[in-house]
Amino acid sequence: MESLEDLALGPCTASPYLRPLRLRYRQNGVSKTWDFMRTHDSVSILIFNTSRQCFVVVKQFRPAVYMSEMAQHCPQDFERNCLENWCPLECHLPASVGVTYELCAGIVDKPELSLEEIARQEVLEECGYEVPLASLQRITSYRSGVGVAGSKQTLFYVEVTDEMKTGKGGGQPEEGELIEVVEIPLRDWMSFAFDETFPKTMGVMFCFMWFQNNIAPKLPTKSE
Amino acid sequence: MESLEDLALGPCTASPYLRPLRLRYRQNGVSKTWDFMRTHDSVSILIFNTSRQCFVVVKQFRPAVYMSEMAQHCPQDFERNCLENWCPLECHLPASVGVTYELCAGIVDKPELSLEEIARQEVLEECGYEVPLASLQRITSYRSGVGVAGSKQTLFYVEVTDEMKTGKGGGQPEEGELIEVVEIPLRDWMSFAFDETFPKTMGVMFCFMWFQNNIAPKLPTKSE
Repeated sequence: MESLEDLALGPCTASPYLRPLRLRYRQNGVSKTWDFMRTHDSVSILIFNTSRQCFVVVKQFRPAVYMSEMAQHCPQDFERNCLENWCPLECHLPASVGVTYELCAGIVDKPELSLEEIARQEVLEECGYEVPLASLQRITSYRSGVGVAGSKQTLFYVEVTDEMKTGKGGGQPEEGELIEVVEIPLRDWMSFAFDETFPKTMGVMFCFMWFQNNIAPKLPTKSE
Repeated sequence: MESLEDLALGPCTASPYLRPLRLRYRQNGVSKTWDFMRTHDSVSILIFNTSRQCFVVVKQFRPAVYMSEMAQHCPQDFERNCLENWCPLECHLPASVGVTYELCAGIVDKPELSLEEIARQEVLEECGYEVPLASLQRITSYRSGVGVAGSKQTLFYVEVTDEMKTGKGGGQPEEGELIEVVEIPLRDWMSFAFDETFPKTMGVMFCFMWFQNNIAPKLPTKSE
């Protein structure tokens, strides 16, 4: 899927994205500290295309997932002191080990928009479907990265038809997004969800299962 | 549940826990950088007590979740320049907003142990049940924090009985762990899972639903 070249690992002293903070507190009389990071809350959307009875998810290269695999397979690259100097990465894994399947999603960074409005924008930008705001159904919310970030993720469900497809999706290339839209036929959901050779987020697995329990029983039976 | 006092927020320039790294790479001909963090892989275990037909989960105060709520409700505390100086937090939310329900879990930091062995240790340390290694059933794995960490989380299922309870659980107080073991009756699973006033991880919700689809149909019916 991807060509990946010239990898190098280096220090990151003042990341605009990752800024650790430290909390000091006393819990039940005991003084403690905890290092954490502020991250944005987010929305994720399970999209089901009723015209072709398939889920619409996205697939993209995730550097953090790739490097987590590298740390397993090429630990020597992490033993050199990359916290101080740039080190080219000699050992190479295929880019595919860092490609994950995920729900269409976006961060909550526009205080003037509701979660539903942000979700609607992401469905259009990432997957190319124009959906009415009222068609977004809230599933639930949960906490992610409870050790480090603890941000709130809200899940939505939306049904789309081929007629609602007004764009190609793929994210915002000007922001470096390189997102591939992928359709998973309804009948394949379980083999996909539990096949560990497709790296994926918990969100995808949870929502597929939620769909089976809550939506599938109400679907009109389709003659094929 | 908790008394929480003397909160202060401050800079965290060289955290031993959170160490951002930067990856430089060329993807399909385009040069990019991505900031990420190395974190440990982890295991989580869905525990079902067959003696009393309940799930056994853990509950603990999570500073990162608490601070994510603080950022929402007391943004002024984050606007001061806490990246450079320590700032006492004047606005106060109850500790309960940072208390989350989670699966029994642990990080994979002992290369000499299998995932099952680490899972077995966590079930004992956190929840007090001594389980045979062979009784741990792998559910699946997924990627968490795909933007920042991308580590691999593996889920297990294990059944316990009251006779297997050999300790109190609660984690390792000497490492500052303060974990409360909580039992969720099987019949209450759905109201618990979808009640957003109980902050929880996706792992809990996914596994409860997995249990309903995969284990519940095979349970012997119990006369009460």
